[in-house]
Amino acid sequence: MNPTFSVQARDGAARLGRLVTAHGVIETPAFMPVGTYGTVKAMTPEELEGLGAQIILGNTFHLMLRPGPPIIAAHGGLHRFMHWPHPILTDSGGFQVFSLKSLRQISEDGVRFRSPVDGREVRLTPEDSMEVQLALRSDIAMALDDCTEHPATEEQARASMERSMRWAARSHARYYRAEGGAPPGGLFGIVQGGMHVTLRLASLEALLHLDWPGLAVGGLAVGESEEQRLSVLEGLVPHMPAGLPRYLMGVGRPEDIVAAVLRGIDLFDCVMPTRHARNGHLFTSAGVLNIRNSGFASDLAPIDPDCDCYTCSNFSRAYLRHLDRCNEILGSRLNTIHNLHYYIGLMRSLRGAIAAGTLDSWAGQFLATRRAAGAVA
Amino acid sequence: MNPTFSVQARDGAARLGRLVTAHGVIETPAFMPVGTYGTVKAMTPEELEGLGAQIILGNTFHLMLRPGPPIIAAHGGLHRFMHWPHPILTDSGGFQVFSLKSLRQISEDGVRFRSPVDGREVRLTPEDSMEVQLALRSDIAMALDDCTEHPATEEQARASMERSMRWAARSHARYYRAEGGAPPGGLFGIVQGGMHVTLRLASLEALLHLDWPGLAVGGLAVGESEEQRLSVLEGLVPHMPAGLPRYLMGVGRPEDIVAAVLRGIDLFDCVMPTRHARNGHLFTSAGVLNIRNSGFASDLAPIDPDCDCYTCSNFSRAYLRHLDRCNEILGSRLNTIHNLHYYIGLMRSLRGAIAAGTLDSWAGQFLATRRAAGAVA
Repeated sequence: MNPTFSVQARDGAARLGRLVTAHGVIETPAFMPVGTYGTVKAMTPEELEGLGAQIILGNTFHLMLRPGPPIIAAHGGLHRFMHWPHPILTDSGGFQVFSLKSLRQISEDGVRFRSPVDGREVRLTPEDSMEVQLALRSDIAMALDDCTEHPATEEQARASMERSMRWAARSHARYYRAEGGAPPGGLFGIVQGGMHVTLRLASLEALLHLDWPGLAVGGLAVGESEEQRLSVLEGLVPHMPAGLPRYLMGVGRPEDIVAAVLRGIDLFDCVMPTRHARNGHLFTSAGVLNIRNSGFASDLAPIDPDCDCYTCSNFSRAYLRHLDRCNEILGSRLNTIHNLHYYIGLMRSLRGAIAAGTLDSWAGQFLATRRAAGAVA
Repeated sequence: MNPTFSVQARDGAARLGRLVTAHGVIETPAFMPVGTYGTVKAMTPEELEGLGAQIILGNTFHLMLRPGPPIIAAHGGLHRFMHWPHPILTDSGGFQVFSLKSLRQISEDGVRFRSPVDGREVRLTPEDSMEVQLALRSDIAMALDDCTEHPATEEQARASMERSMRWAARSHARYYRAEGGAPPGGLFGIVQGGMHVTLRLASLEALLHLDWPGLAVGGLAVGESEEQRLSVLEGLVPHMPAGLPRYLMGVGRPEDIVAAVLRGIDLFDCVMPTRHARNGHLFTSAGVLNIRNSGFASDLAPIDPDCDCYTCSNFSRAYLRHLDRCNEILGSRLNTIHNLHYYIGLMRSLRGAIAAGTLDSWAGQFLATRRAAGAVA
């Protein structure tokens, strides 16, 4: 089924929303933990559920290479393959393919690349990406886009955006084609246009010739400055349809998420909480703590005394540092639980502040605390 | 407190027992998952509890190097450090030190070795081992022994065993010395003597000059044949005090455990279920399954259709093979859950068969099934 979205409350540009999919409801603003290979690294589905995750993201690029769509389809889709009964969003694979740089060739048809797994040549057209995402049976699929390089001239950004718009139409046609039967989920279009607000608005206008159950802002979190990112959001988001969910792809740090929610964004994904966890970088109300610091060797305190996650309730910094030093799997697990608890708790706080109409003061205090801790420039 | 042991039922030489420690009761025959660095690899304490683990083993050698006894003592001991409230047995460190071979020097005083972690010289005497194990506050500590090489001449085995007996007495004196106050647990003596039953009996006699709450059989699982191992057990175990628990160190394969229970052994430890799990070797009623085999790539069945563990209840062989191929942490977790469930279930079955007085036929059937599956020579 096509996801449906309703706005429950507003606070300035920010919205409290409900996104209803075939596998359940997502309260927005929401953060999607990244489950690249059909697993949010180190976590079971029940643990994610317990942390309050309502939706996760799967990577089409990775899953098409390993294990491949037929094996996932034979299980009845990605939900059953990975034993996650709640909503899943899949990306289009475009971002990862473009990151291959020398290993890929782009044409109007799509992209050809050498698999980093086994070197075979793989093709990814908009239609291919839809076939894979339909096989995965995700609740939200993403159109294939041509990811604009950064930095890019206005001319490069325009050409890339225009190709993305042609690919968006092909993605849409393939995803919703009548003979395929009703698709398992809905397809989101992606606004491109680099750092140029005029191109962003042209991209939005082009997308709105078609019906989408949601729209994403792509091509950010690619190395631009915070000023550039916020300027794109401030120029673009007010023009996006108020009735559709807005997904800012690949963002980001806690303060980036807060800034984007303040500007009307509803959905986020980022590898940061999970990847940082495995590297011992732990989010706390007082900034990021690096558990590898020798200063924690005999520290009996939890990561964050104000945190009530499983890790902070039961284990000391000294124990976590020991696990990290010994490369113990449990260390990655406990750190991931803590960081996801932080991110999911952040979204819960944002929703509470929007509902209470106190987002501005909440965000001001949040950013001041982060700044005092040296976490924000 | 000194552990106490009572035999509840017998079936031939096998015993159903209760071993009571300061942190709880262990029903025997029991298997102890190995938690080398203060974590049973990939598992949380709650998961171990859920699997029915009643006691785990910690490695003194590893923990004395990382994080070191003072940090564990500052937490109040190993139980609190690792958040495991149930019984813990610690080994003496001897076995690992002897495995260092060229990096260690043995004298009557003890062993000196180069730390494989940072190269510093470390000393391990019987007294040192007791100090570490007392700091860890394990429920069952092990005497430091001189691990006899295999193969060894009778003369080598005798000299080594006699040194072990002198070290056992020193271990006992240090562990139970009056000025230290009541120790947190009890100390088990270790019978040595290589493959020579006469030396084994001499070792037992030497140990029995002192009081021990339990005895172990050391120096097996070192590369000897099954015939050699069983011949030592058959010559030794009938002479061990019936009222003490008997621990066969480092054994082993499921069929080895069954054979040893039939001969009167009560406690086991082995890295096999956990290490095999991380390498994709999974125990089933029909033998060992290697999840890396390409034949499982699209296999929708669980590891073992007769198994009711979390992994088999929710995940396919195809998914587990995929996780293994992608080096996903969740793969190690799910495989470990399955293998520990198998081992702990095996012990439960053994206890049930002893209680019912049907151990002989149960074991016959078990070994026949394993043989048919090619798992036993």
